[in-house]
Amino acid sequence: MKVLLNGGVARRGMEILSERFGDRISLRQIAIGGNDPAITEDVANSMGWAEVLISLNYGPEFPPAPNLKLLQIPASGLDAIELKEVPGGAAICNVYEHEVGIAEYTFNGMLEWVVGLARRNEAFKRGDWTGTPSLGGETRGELAGLTIGCLGYGNIGRAVARRALAFDMKVLALTRNPRLLDPEPAFMGAYADLPKILDAVDFLLVCCPLTEDTRSITGAAELAAMKSGSVLINVARGHIVEEGALFTALRDGGIGGAILDTWYQYPNADDPGIRPSHQPFHELDNVLMTPHISGWTEGQQQRRWAKTGDNIEALMTGGNLINLIRPSRP
Amino acid sequence: MKVLLNGGVARRGMEILSERFGDRISLRQIAIGGNDPAITEDVANSMGWAEVLISLNYGPEFPPAPNLKLLQIPASGLDAIELKEVPGGAAICNVYEHEVGIAEYTFNGMLEWVVGLARRNEAFKRGDWTGTPSLGGETRGELAGLTIGCLGYGNIGRAVARRALAFDMKVLALTRNPRLLDPEPAFMGAYADLPKILDAVDFLLVCCPLTEDTRSITGAAELAAMKSGSVLINVARGHIVEEGALFTALRDGGIGGAILDTWYQYPNADDPGIRPSHQPFHELDNVLMTPHISGWTEGQQQRRWAKTGDNIEALMTGGNLINLIRPSRP
Repeated sequence: MKVLLNGGVARRGMEILSERFGDRISLRQIAIGGNDPAITEDVANSMGWAEVLISLNYGPEFPPAPNLKLLQIPASGLDAIELKEVPGGAAICNVYEHEVGIAEYTFNGMLEWVVGLARRNEAFKRGDWTGTPSLGGETRGELAGLTIGCLGYGNIGRAVARRALAFDMKVLALTRNPRLLDPEPAFMGAYADLPKILDAVDFLLVCCPLTEDTRSITGAAELAAMKSGSVLINVARGHIVEEGALFTALRDGGIGGAILDTWYQYPNADDPGIRPSHQPFHELDNVLMTPHISGWTEGQQQRRWAKTGDNIEALMTGGNLINLIRPSRP
Repeated sequence: MKVLLNGGVARRGMEILSERFGDRISLRQIAIGGNDPAITEDVANSMGWAEVLISLNYGPEFPPAPNLKLLQIPASGLDAIELKEVPGGAAICNVYEHEVGIAEYTFNGMLEWVVGLARRNEAFKRGDWTGTPSLGGETRGELAGLTIGCLGYGNIGRAVARRALAFDMKVLALTRNPRLLDPEPAFMGAYADLPKILDAVDFLLVCCPLTEDTRSITGAAELAAMKSGSVLINVARGHIVEEGALFTALRDGGIGGAILDTWYQYPNADDPGIRPSHQPFHELDNVLMTPHISGWTEGQQQRRWAKTGDNIEALMTGGNLINLIRPSRP
């Protein structure tokens, strides 16, 4: 089986797949898109050669791939894949496995918001006892009893919800196709039901895919409907939340804060140190922000490459593909 | 009913009890111990007057209290109460209700240790994309799959364990009187079984009372038996962990880190800005430290004063006392 890896994913993938399959597969790597858009003859030859392509992106700039049987996305997001450009003979699969890391990140953020351990650590290391009970320190709130709304109730939303229930939080959920899902939330609705939950949530967790239905679904009107102390958490894609409206709501106290891991601009060859937004979120004290690392755990990588390998194995042995997004045309 | 409040607890207590009971009780306040050790005639009169004393401490310096029917400790710890000094006619009760806050604090600490959201926030706000996956950032670990050992399996240990199971962690528990407790840990032992779990835990949570059995139970030998990457969390009392041994283990890499909320020295009138230890824990990067705030939530205060009021009510109406530590002698 001829397996081609595109871009940065080759760093881990070449090693892990080589160790698992040995000489049962041939491996090559290319770089199309992102920081290296030039299509060389080598790249075109490799695309013609490949039976499996492992890539986070796919578009019209990709050379023909007449032998392609599987486009394996070694991540969950499809927003950099132009489905109609992928040869019809190729099945398309993705992988998840990031839900553990993202759920842990989400709780790190919510707990830092409510408890403030890291913030208090800095003050106490300077010798500041402010807040200690014996000196009449102010009490803080508890996550217990608060409400989290999950905009998206797939693997991530449900992993967060399971933990939230153990923390005695109330869970409201919105998903593309509302149905009975485990764990059962106190409210289950469609994306269009977002206005119904906005004034009830203390935390709004954005964890749905970026699609035409969800792009900018959280704009000025939605942010204005949220409680003034509420916190927006985005672990999905920046553009699900309208950039300018979010900044304004945070700066002017329309909402209480935000925990942001996904962005509007990313480093590129021309500007490797680019700020993640056109707005100066980094100047706001009520924002906790990170560089798209919420799901980036060693466990996620091990599980993703194991399932990617399983799909290569399935293709070699006639087994069933995992997470089939689009079957191949016969 | 004549109710006397001692020390800083009067700040909240006078208001809450006055609102609940109105003229059904009489309230006075004094200050014995801590920063104000002088016993005035007023204090002695008030002690003679009191039927209920609400106090965090009790010792031989307290004037006689011949009418005392209840010593209500508005917290959980008994280590500042000299039981034999409390008049035999008085029942002794405490309250818990801090387990929610302490469990949330514990997870804030463990998640900050593993995920590092607050630490990464600071770097990213300065414009540093280090760690982002598209630039080949290093993966991190997950709480899922790690083991937490609870030295103490009362209200706090079990509140942490319930959350830990939802995070797919493994729970080992030690308690004074091992028995079937919910949630059921993977291992249940006595304090003396501590050496059996030390090399298995990624986090050792100290959450037992400070007694003659537990004082310095975690010393140099115990710390040396822990994994080099493991993290000690102390939300109970400083002196359960031997101060110098802990500092040395942290400084020299014997263990990976510590999350410390309870201490060896506290602010007093002579030295209100005293450092919390004779050792410079504040100079160590692998320590997260806070000024004894882990359980200090508004919910805890509301629940504690509600139960304290319930015990006053019980005394007035002949009902049952909650959390009876020692009954009154007839």
